Amino acid sequence: MRFVVIGGDAAGMSAASLARRRDSRLEIIVLEQTFDVSYSACGMPYNIADPERSMDDLVVREAKVFRDKLGLDLRLGHRVTAVDPGQKQVTGVNVSGESFTVGYDSLLLATGASPVVPELPGAETDGVQVLKSLEQGRDVKESLIKRAVKRVVIVGMGYIAMEMADVLRARGIAVDMVKPRSRLLPWLDEQLAAEVYQELEKNRVGVYAGHEPKRIERTASGLKCVCPDLELDGEMVLLAVGVKPNSELAAAAGIELGAEGAVAIDGSMRTSHPDVYAAGDCAEARHLVTGRKAWFPLALVANRGGRVAAENVTGGKAVLEGIVGTAVFKVFDLEVARTGITAGDAAEYGFDPVSVTITSQSKAHAHPGSWPILVHMVGDRLSGRLLGAQMVGREGAAHRINALAVALHNKMQVSGFAETDLAYAPPFGPVWDPTLIAARQLLKKMQKDK
Amino acid sequence: MRFVVIGGDAAGMSAASLARRRDSRLEIIVLEQTFDVSYSACGMPYNIADPERSMDDLVVREAKVFRDKLGLDLRLGHRVTAVDPGQKQVTGVNVSGESFTVGYDSLLLATGASPVVPELPGAETDGVQVLKSLEQGRDVKESLIKRAVKRVVIVGMGYIAMEMADVLRARGIAVDMVKPRSRLLPWLDEQLAAEVYQELEKNRVGVYAGHEPKRIERTASGLKCVCPDLELDGEMVLLAVGVKPNSELAAAAGIELGAEGAVAIDGSMRTSHPDVYAAGDCAEARHLVTGRKAWFPLALVANRGGRVAAENVTGGKAVLEGIVGTAVFKVFDLEVARTGITAGDAAEYGFDPVSVTITSQSKAHAHPGSWPILVHMVGDRLSGRLLGAQMVGREGAAHRINALAVALHNKMQVSGFAETDLAYAPPFGPVWDPTLIAARQLLKKMQKDK
Repeated sequence: MRFVVIGGDAAGMSAASLARRRDSRLEIIVLEQTFDVSYSACGMPYNIADPERSMDDLVVREAKVFRDKLGLDLRLGHRVTAVDPGQKQVTGVNVSGESFTVGYDSLLLATGASPVVPELPGAETDGVQVLKSLEQGRDVKESLIKRAVKRVVIVGMGYIAMEMADVLRARGIAVDMVKPRSRLLPWLDEQLAAEVYQELEKNRVGVYAGHEPKRIERTASGLKCVCPDLELDGEMVLLAVGVKPNSELAAAAGIELGAEGAVAIDGSMRTSHPDVYAAGDCAEARHLVTGRKAWFPLALVANRGGRVAAENVTGGKAVLEGIVGTAVFKVFDLEVARTGITAGDAAEYGFDPVSVTITSQSKAHAHPGSWPILVHMVGDRLSGRLLGAQMVGREGAAHRINALAVALHNKMQVSGFAETDLAYAPPFGPVWDPTLIAARQLLKKMQKDK
Repeated sequence: MRFVVIGGDAAGMSAASLARRRDSRLEIIVLEQTFDVSYSACGMPYNIADPERSMDDLVVREAKVFRDKLGLDLRLGHRVTAVDPGQKQVTGVNVSGESFTVGYDSLLLATGASPVVPELPGAETDGVQVLKSLEQGRDVKESLIKRAVKRVVIVGMGYIAMEMADVLRARGIAVDMVKPRSRLLPWLDEQLAAEVYQELEKNRVGVYAGHEPKRIERTASGLKCVCPDLELDGEMVLLAVGVKPNSELAAAAGIELGAEGAVAIDGSMRTSHPDVYAAGDCAEARHLVTGRKAWFPLALVANRGGRVAAENVTGGKAVLEGIVGTAVFKVFDLEVARTGITAGDAAEYGFDPVSVTITSQSKAHAHPGSWPILVHMVGDRLSGRLLGAQMVGREGAAHRINALAVALHNKMQVSGFAETDLAYAPPFGPVWDPTLIAARQLLKKMQKDK
C-alpha cells in the first residue's frame, strides 16, 4: 500500500508522520517542490526581525529525521504538475528537470496556499517581495541586509502585513502601508480597528488606507509605489495582499473545489474523488457557527487536517468536526483576536445579529499597570446563541479569545457564557472578566431589542 | 416592602444595587458591621505592597454613592447578632452600643468569611496579624511601617500567603513561610507544586512545610514562631491558614448549613427558610462537575450570587447554575490556575480518573523569550468527560484556564476539547496550545488504559 503526499509542510508532514505511526509497513512518499519541510511559516516575520538567527531555526523537524526515524520517502525539489485520479498516479518534474510518475493507493493534497500577487505593473521588479514560503522568507531577510533597507512599503494591511510592520519598525526601518480599501481590517469592529490604527500611528507606521497602488517603479535610490494621489518610496516593496489556495492541481484533475476556491472536502478530509484527500491551506473546512464550508488557511487547522487524513488513510475513522474561525495576531503591543463570525456575516447567513463593543481593563480595579481591553461580541437575537467575538488589547486578549472559541464549539447561548465561572485575581483582570462584561451587555441588548 | 441585607461587600452590595435597579420603590437596608463597603478584598496584598497608595483605593464605590445615587439605607457599624426568621426580623448592636431591631420582608445573608485563627498560644500577641477585612489590611500595612518590619513569618501557604510572600519580598522584607503539612498546595499536582516551590526558593522565601507552629513568643526584637524543631523570627507574624464561612448567625436561627459549614442554598440563593437568601463567601454553591454542593469563597461567585438573590427578591426568576471551581493566583513570576476537580476528588466522587501532566511553552517553536507552561489535566475514563485542569507557568497560564472552565460548564469530553479551534500566533504559544497537547495526551492515556 502506498500513501503519496503532495506538500511537505504542516498538513503534509503531520499526515505522513501519523500515518507512519499508525502503520509501520505503509509506503509513504512525500513530494515537496521546495527543499524545506515542516517549518513554522507563522514564525517568519519574527525571524526576519532578528539578524542573529538563521531562518532554519524555524524548521521544526529536519528532512533527515523524517527519513531516518520515520522511514519516509521524502522527495524534495519534486514539483507535481498533474494528478490523475483515474490512473491513481501523479506526474511531475524534479529540480533537475527530470519527469517523474508516482502511483498511489491514497493521495493527500497538502499543497498549501500562495500569496496573491496583485496585477501591478512593476510587481516583478527586483526588490518587490512576497512572503509565504521559507525560501521567500530567506529572500526578504537577505534583501534587508544586502540592500541596506531603510524604508519598506507594504502593500496590504492584513495580519502578515501588520506583523511585518511591527518587526521592521523594531529593526529601525521606516514602514509605510498602503491599500485600496479605506477600512482598516474590515472584518474587525470599527472601534477595535481604530485602536489598531492608533497603535500603528504611535509606532510611526505610515497608514495609507484608501489608496490604490497603480504601479511600482524603479528609482535612483530604490523603488516607488505609485498611487493616483500618493507616491511611497522604499528600498523594498512587500506585497502582502492575501493568500489563495493552491487548488489548481485538484481543479485540473476534476476534483471539486469549494469555499473560496479551496479543495472541497468532508469531515474525513476526503475530496470528491475516491482515495484523494486534502488538508491544510489548500482545503476548506466546516465552520461550526454557520454550518457552512469556509476557508481558514491557519496552522492548527492544517496540522489537525493532516492527522485526520492519516487516520483515515490507515484504516481509522477520524472526523474533524470543524472550525470556529479563531485567529490572533500581535501588532506592536496590541493583541488582536477573533473567533466565530462578524455581525455582517451573521446577517448574510440568516441570523438576526445583535452586537456590542465594551471597554474594560486588563487588571482589577485599582491594580497598577492596567491597560484597556476592547471586546466586541455578536449574538443571535432569535436563538440567543453566541456567534462571535473580537478583542483588542494588551495582556491577555490573545488567550481570552479561547474561552469564547470553546463556547462556540458548544453552541452556547450568550446567557450561558455570561454565567461561566472564569478565573479572577487582580493581576489578571477585573472580577467580571471583560468577556463576561461584554456577554452581559450583549444579553441586555438582545432582550431589550426583542 | 423591605429588603434587608446583612453585609456590605461583594455579594451584599451587588444585591442591594441590583435590587434598587429592578425596583425603585423597594426599601433596602444594608447592615454592615465595619465602616467599609464594596471593596476589592483580593487587591489587599497588592495595595499593602505599595506605600504610595491608600488602602481606600480598593473601595470600588463609596457609601455616599450608594446612599445618594441608589437611595440605599446603608447602616455602617451595625453588627447583627441574631436573625429571627419566625418574626422576620434581625437584631443587633451598633458601634455606639445601641441595640437595634429591623424587620424584613426578604433577607439576604451576605456575611462573608473570616480568617481561621489557629489555636496557638500567643496568637493574640501584638504584631500577629490576619488579613481578610479592609480594616485588617490597613492594620497590616500600618504595622509594616510603624514597626519597621524587616522579617515576616507567614503561617500557612495558601494563595493569600503566597501573594503576601510575593508583595513583601518586593518591599525587600525577608519572608519565612511555615505550615504543618509537608505538601505544598496539596490540591495542586505535585509536579506543578514543585515549580511553585522553586519559584519561592528563587525569590529567597524560606519554605518550611511540615513544621507545626506550637506557639508565638515575644522576643527582644519582635516575635518568634516556635515549632518543635524550628524557630522563626520576625517583627510580624501573619496568620494565613485559611478562611471559614460566617454562618453562625444562620446556624443560630435554625437555617440549614451545607458544604463545609457554609449556608445551604439552592440555585435561586434561597436558604432553608422562606424569604431568607444567602450569597457570597458565607454560602455554598453547586459544583457543576460533581453535581454536589461545594464551598468556593471567591469574588466572582459572590458578585453573581448577590445579583441572583436580588433578581428573585424583586420578583424575577433567576438561577445560578453553579460553579466549576476556577481560581488563579500569581506568585512572583508564576501564574497558578485551576478549574474543575482534582484526580483525588474525582475518585471520591465516583469517577474513574485518569490524569496527565505535560510541559509545553508559552511561545511557539523558536520564538524568543518562551517560558515553560505545565498543564495537569484530569478526565473520567468511563464517560470520557473532562473533569479538571491545573496550570503553572508564565505568560498566559491564568487566562488559558478559562477555555477549560467553559469546557467544564459544557460537560465536554476530553476528545471534544482536544478538537477545539484555539488561537495561534507565535508570540502567544505553540501551534497546539499547551491545553490541547495535554488533552491529546490525556485522551491517549484514557484510551490505552481502557
